[in-house]
Amino acid sequence: MRKIMNKPEDFVDEMLQGVLEAHPDKIKYINNDLRCIVRANVKSGKVGISTGGGSGHLPLFMGYVGKGMLDGCAVGNVFASPSTNQMLTITKEINTGKGVLYIYGNYGGDILNFNMSADMADMEDIKVMQVVANDDVASSPKGQEEDRRGVAGIFYVYKIAGACAEEGASLEEVSEIAKKTCENVRTMGVGLSPCIIPEVGKPTFEMNEGEMEIGIGIHGEPGIGKGKLESSDEIVKKIMKNIIEDLPYKAGDEVSVLINGLGSTPLEELYIVYRKVAQILKETDIKIYNSYVGEFATSMEMAGMSISLLRLDDELKAFLGKPAKTPFFEQSQL
Amino acid sequence: MRKIMNKPEDFVDEMLQGVLEAHPDKIKYINNDLRCIVRANVKSGKVGISTGGGSGHLPLFMGYVGKGMLDGCAVGNVFASPSTNQMLTITKEINTGKGVLYIYGNYGGDILNFNMSADMADMEDIKVMQVVANDDVASSPKGQEEDRRGVAGIFYVYKIAGACAEEGASLEEVSEIAKKTCENVRTMGVGLSPCIIPEVGKPTFEMNEGEMEIGIGIHGEPGIGKGKLESSDEIVKKIMKNIIEDLPYKAGDEVSVLINGLGSTPLEELYIVYRKVAQILKETDIKIYNSYVGEFATSMEMAGMSISLLRLDDELKAFLGKPAKTPFFEQSQL
Repeated sequence: MRKIMNKPEDFVDEMLQGVLEAHPDKIKYINNDLRCIVRANVKSGKVGISTGGGSGHLPLFMGYVGKGMLDGCAVGNVFASPSTNQMLTITKEINTGKGVLYIYGNYGGDILNFNMSADMADMEDIKVMQVVANDDVASSPKGQEEDRRGVAGIFYVYKIAGACAEEGASLEEVSEIAKKTCENVRTMGVGLSPCIIPEVGKPTFEMNEGEMEIGIGIHGEPGIGKGKLESSDEIVKKIMKNIIEDLPYKAGDEVSVLINGLGSTPLEELYIVYRKVAQILKETDIKIYNSYVGEFATSMEMAGMSISLLRLDDELKAFLGKPAKTPFFEQSQL
Repeated sequence: MRKIMNKPEDFVDEMLQGVLEAHPDKIKYINNDLRCIVRANVKSGKVGISTGGGSGHLPLFMGYVGKGMLDGCAVGNVFASPSTNQMLTITKEINTGKGVLYIYGNYGGDILNFNMSADMADMEDIKVMQVVANDDVASSPKGQEEDRRGVAGIFYVYKIAGACAEEGASLEEVSEIAKKTCENVRTMGVGLSPCIIPEVGKPTFEMNEGEMEIGIGIHGEPGIGKGKLESSDEIVKKIMKNIIEDLPYKAGDEVSVLINGLGSTPLEELYIVYRKVAQILKETDIKIYNSYVGEFATSMEMAGMSISLLRLDDELKAFLGKPAKTPFFEQSQL
């Protein structure tokens, strides 16, 4: 292992201590549980938005708790769901009377626990709605979108639903705009190396130098093609073809572009990817409204990247452009 | 190699095309040369600040060109200095009558070329001053600070000099505050793996899994100790001892902390590092004013990180807290 860490069993809690220590103006923990993260100042009179998921994906998930985005996040072990109790604790804390929206990725453990938390919140008269992100085109064919995994595109759902909630919209309205964002975002990635779960101590799967897997999930789930590493332009062409044909994105559309590094792929390579993405969109007569290039949803030290497109209309554009300030993401008004 | 790229010889230019394409509101290139980067709108009536250096260190160097920081950047090949001509071209473009300050790291090629550029600017009646960052404690002993390499701490010099220039200060004043920042910042890093220069195609040095080198430079220059990989807390203790004793930072001081990932070390590990840094500072009665955790000065896919401390007074604090908006760094007023 090439990890700068202490005892593997302390990995998550020590990481959380560091994040909380670095960002006391933005987030805090409640219930004497480091894994129950909420905004430092929960704003009253707004719909609460909560998320949750396994560790190992920073900035996901807790990194987006803060002004203009999320109100709470339940943190699990590496690649494992947090508990129902943690989710419920956060739900109670961030509910200021307008109800709570859960936004999370389409994974079995998370679904089970968030559903139970929603039921328990209901018994305490807290209205909860849920939106499940499923942007990974590679994980299930068109027509079976409900089986798709949630990956980096969830960033857009947080951003847009968060901006909507910040303006005082109702739970139904925030849920609608989150769903609309999910419907318009598509992602596909490529992996060049596995990553190591600290407590396991060895790679979760094998991938030799010079190999790649297109469509790989952020926990190393199988993609749609494993083979010899190709050139950046070839990889981008394949991914973009899959993404564009899926929605489909069409000439005249306007999109936001997200190039996401999976952990150990340098920014230089992400920008070489962006160059080709912009070229393809120009050729397809799809306009780029804005773009994000960096690490937004990682798999610890996995090498690789993903491309996400979000189709925009005036409503989505307005919310996307609003300011946000969280431990891992800051944007002034676009 | 595990690189997502096309032809190695196109690595830098394609990266630049991507960065320019992604940030047209912040930066542009001039003189028909992608490697001459300036602010999209050079502000008149202010001192121009320029930098430059080899590629492979994103966000360094060009990533800090933008509002509140730099006005121009000459971009070299991977780990190689840009040319005198590129530096001079930028100098002429960003000089709006108040002169130009060069801020760059202490490396032979850069010094040579920036000196020549300054001489040539002088012949064209452009006043140029120079500040050379030399924050790497590991690269030369106390008392021989002028021989030290410039590493991640240069971020602070850009930030503070940039904020000062933005307020309309004179060339002498901006140069003074840049020097003062250099005098108060110290950095030391640790490397866990080498990186590969695209056109070379193999690691610049060997480091096996399970090894580390404390004090390594951002081009793999030798550090002060190579050995078995230790725990995060042990590494942090060693680095902090060296940094704190060097300035020295003392009880009662107030500092800004920068934890910088070298390229492939995940954010989770950087926060585990931050946790211990904060603990040590607390024990030493040194107050943290603010902190930055992420990638600020990388070595492509090198694994490892560096710790920087900047000692603050009211003047430095005020400039550090000013807003900035560049392709790779955004901060609202602190």
